[in-house]
Amino acid sequence: MAASLPNDPATAHVPIASLVRSEDTQALSDHLATMGMRDLVAELARLDDDAMGVAFRLLERDRAAEVFEALEPTYQQRLLGGLRADRVVHLIEELDPDDRVRLLDEVPAKVANRLLAALSPEELTLTTTLLGYPEESAGRLMSPEFVSLRAAMTVGEALAKIRTDGVDAETIYALPVLDDERHLIGVTGLRALVVTDRDNLVGDLMNTDVKFVSTHADQEVAARLVSTEGLIALPVVDAEQRLVGVLTVDDAMDVLAAEESEDAALQGARTPAKTPYLAMSVVSIARTRALWLLVLIVAAALTVNVLQVFEDSLAQVVALALFIPLLIDTGGNCGSQASTSMVRALAVADVRPEDVRRVVWREARVGLMLGLMLGAAAFVPVALIWEPNLALVVAATLVSICTWATMAGAALPFVARRLGIDPAVVSAPLITTLVDASGLLIYFGFANLILNI
Amino acid sequence: MAASLPNDPATAHVPIASLVRSEDTQALSDHLATMGMRDLVAELARLDDDAMGVAFRLLERDRAAEVFEALEPTYQQRLLGGLRADRVVHLIEELDPDDRVRLLDEVPAKVANRLLAALSPEELTLTTTLLGYPEESAGRLMSPEFVSLRAAMTVGEALAKIRTDGVDAETIYALPVLDDERHLIGVTGLRALVVTDRDNLVGDLMNTDVKFVSTHADQEVAARLVSTEGLIALPVVDAEQRLVGVLTVDDAMDVLAAEESEDAALQGARTPAKTPYLAMSVVSIARTRALWLLVLIVAAALTVNVLQVFEDSLAQVVALALFIPLLIDTGGNCGSQASTSMVRALAVADVRPEDVRRVVWREARVGLMLGLMLGAAAFVPVALIWEPNLALVVAATLVSICTWATMAGAALPFVARRLGIDPAVVSAPLITTLVDASGLLIYFGFANLILNI
Repeated sequence: MAASLPNDPATAHVPIASLVRSEDTQALSDHLATMGMRDLVAELARLDDDAMGVAFRLLERDRAAEVFEALEPTYQQRLLGGLRADRVVHLIEELDPDDRVRLLDEVPAKVANRLLAALSPEELTLTTTLLGYPEESAGRLMSPEFVSLRAAMTVGEALAKIRTDGVDAETIYALPVLDDERHLIGVTGLRALVVTDRDNLVGDLMNTDVKFVSTHADQEVAARLVSTEGLIALPVVDAEQRLVGVLTVDDAMDVLAAEESEDAALQGARTPAKTPYLAMSVVSIARTRALWLLVLIVAAALTVNVLQVFEDSLAQVVALALFIPLLIDTGGNCGSQASTSMVRALAVADVRPEDVRRVVWREARVGLMLGLMLGAAAFVPVALIWEPNLALVVAATLVSICTWATMAGAALPFVARRLGIDPAVVSAPLITTLVDASGLLIYFGFANLILNI
Repeated sequence: MAASLPNDPATAHVPIASLVRSEDTQALSDHLATMGMRDLVAELARLDDDAMGVAFRLLERDRAAEVFEALEPTYQQRLLGGLRADRVVHLIEELDPDDRVRLLDEVPAKVANRLLAALSPEELTLTTTLLGYPEESAGRLMSPEFVSLRAAMTVGEALAKIRTDGVDAETIYALPVLDDERHLIGVTGLRALVVTDRDNLVGDLMNTDVKFVSTHADQEVAARLVSTEGLIALPVVDAEQRLVGVLTVDDAMDVLAAEESEDAALQGARTPAKTPYLAMSVVSIARTRALWLLVLIVAAALTVNVLQVFEDSLAQVVALALFIPLLIDTGGNCGSQASTSMVRALAVADVRPEDVRRVVWREARVGLMLGLMLGAAAFVPVALIWEPNLALVVAATLVSICTWATMAGAALPFVARRLGIDPAVVSAPLITTLVDASGLLIYFGFANLILNI
């Protein structure tokens, strides 16, 4: 058991990579056999394609299938290339239908068709059904293999059914109860069945206040429902409210982790990528960032135009230029604080799209308070080192910029949501760049007013 | 059942708030009775303290306990103030020990002591044991109420024990197997017991490659283990490797959601707050942002000093000022892309602290590529509108700033981790502000070199 401890010194410092390089197959094979599943999966993911293939081929057949299932689709795809066709068929056949669909989404269409063709008729039906639902929908993610009960069953009958049907099911802990038309009428748990008398009826044990989603529901919404409700599995129904699958808690956690990575990328003004960092080439990493940088530099070009308009003012009072970075940084920071706050609040439904006015009004007051604080803090040193009028320009600009940037930062995630865009695209870099030009307009407006230039 | 649909039109548009205001107790009570648990919890969380208290007091006793358990500790605390003492005792007694500990962490010490004093001796022991573990540790979060089995038990005996001991346990789906000294030797699941013959031995069914954590393990690490392994419950052991609790998947999801909110706050340069956005006053919101803004404006003051040094150059070539916002924005954007990328990769262990050199070297090449792209894109328009030498200064600055900012953005989260600080503090606003002064040095360095000023 010790071998499975995450930081176990016995395994942590013998990297597979060096054993692969040494070409000592026996030592590598022995080493792999001692590793816990989790370490093994984590270590494989850190190898290059060739080394990963060498190590994987040395795994015992059933263990290999387990490892394959635990790997991210992107690694699964990379492994497939180096394996014999019969081995590939075995691995694909062993995957749960929902995991199989995620892999099929990753590979080129030609490979996907070849893999589908190799499936048994039964597994093929399960897979193509899932493939029929839109991407990012609960239907794609659900497991079509579940055990359902009827209200009229006794607990004894239910347990017997679970014993027979439960072999292929992804979970038997959450048990949907259906009527004769396969409509969902309640849910019970294996726990309730096990602790109760065998003559009781399922209908008397089931909970009828059931959470469920439609096959077309957004995966993230469904997964958050599993999380907030603390469910083991969430029933998924079709347009006629008939049960067609269940979304299990482990798949929900995977979705939430993937959404978190996607939001983190957007919040950093990067194009989300499914591949873990070290598995990406330098060129691919640059590609996830180039588009946003270009968009942002075009937006930033507006600041050049604004400054050009005020070039004479700048020539007259060069000291004005000194405060440009500080002022636009502060505006960007206020805007970033408000936007990251709203992106998160919208994601977890702490605020709803209809709260937009209430939120912007709150943020206006927050921004004003922060602006007054920063304006006061900046006034004294600028007045002492330069002169009171310049200090007044800087302080007035800080108050205005903070209020305006905070309001804009709070409003933009709502605008994105309204436009059907993920609010997370309103990133700190985007809001910073967007409020810069307006910040400069405010600054030179006050400068012209107060310094009479 | 329809009433529990997240977007059910029948309930979504009859807010509790207006019923509370109308003082029609009967209508409010009827309305509350029709609501699903989830909607009820969500709606209560949107009310002010008084309205929440009015609505809560109208709930039927057992339902109230369920709702109370489902509320965040911060709302639980706000509710307690308005309730009669006997009601409070009942609610606290009904909470699971781990949920109770989370509430006790929220309330003032005086209130916590009064609540503890009211507990039954049995519940008191469970609670004080958990309170003995460090904050943010797995021990605080685990449930001490679990069902454990012995390897020598038959499945029939195991099921009988589960039926007796399982009533108070938080989960009976994951079943730790212990030896005579209560050491963890394996884990099995209710599923395995239910589908197998009653004469089989637990020892033959259990999995001995068990993941577990110590009571002092970090909550986030433990919760991520539950997520990546797809566990129903993770065993928690003491220093002598004896089982003392289990961390269930629903609690793990709560931890991950809380960590995500905390990271989101840090990434937006805000002090994390446990209270949902709309439940915070405008002043409290401003307070979560003020400190970071002050730190950042002090850091930004460095840009004023740098520009002051180059005031003569600026006076000679005012056009240099025009590109300041664009150049520092771009540097900040490159740095933000790299830092957000590393914060996430470190959080999910895609990269490890020892990868720092490899990562910074990769990012140097990424930054160089992006800088070359942006420099080339900027050269032509600047050369056409102004003059080639100024264009050369801008392009050379872009190449250098992008490379430098990308490296710094990638390295800083590792530095934070090394210093024992959450890498998420390396936010886009922080990195933007930090690289600005150095960006200006680079810019005026090139300007002096190329324009001979």
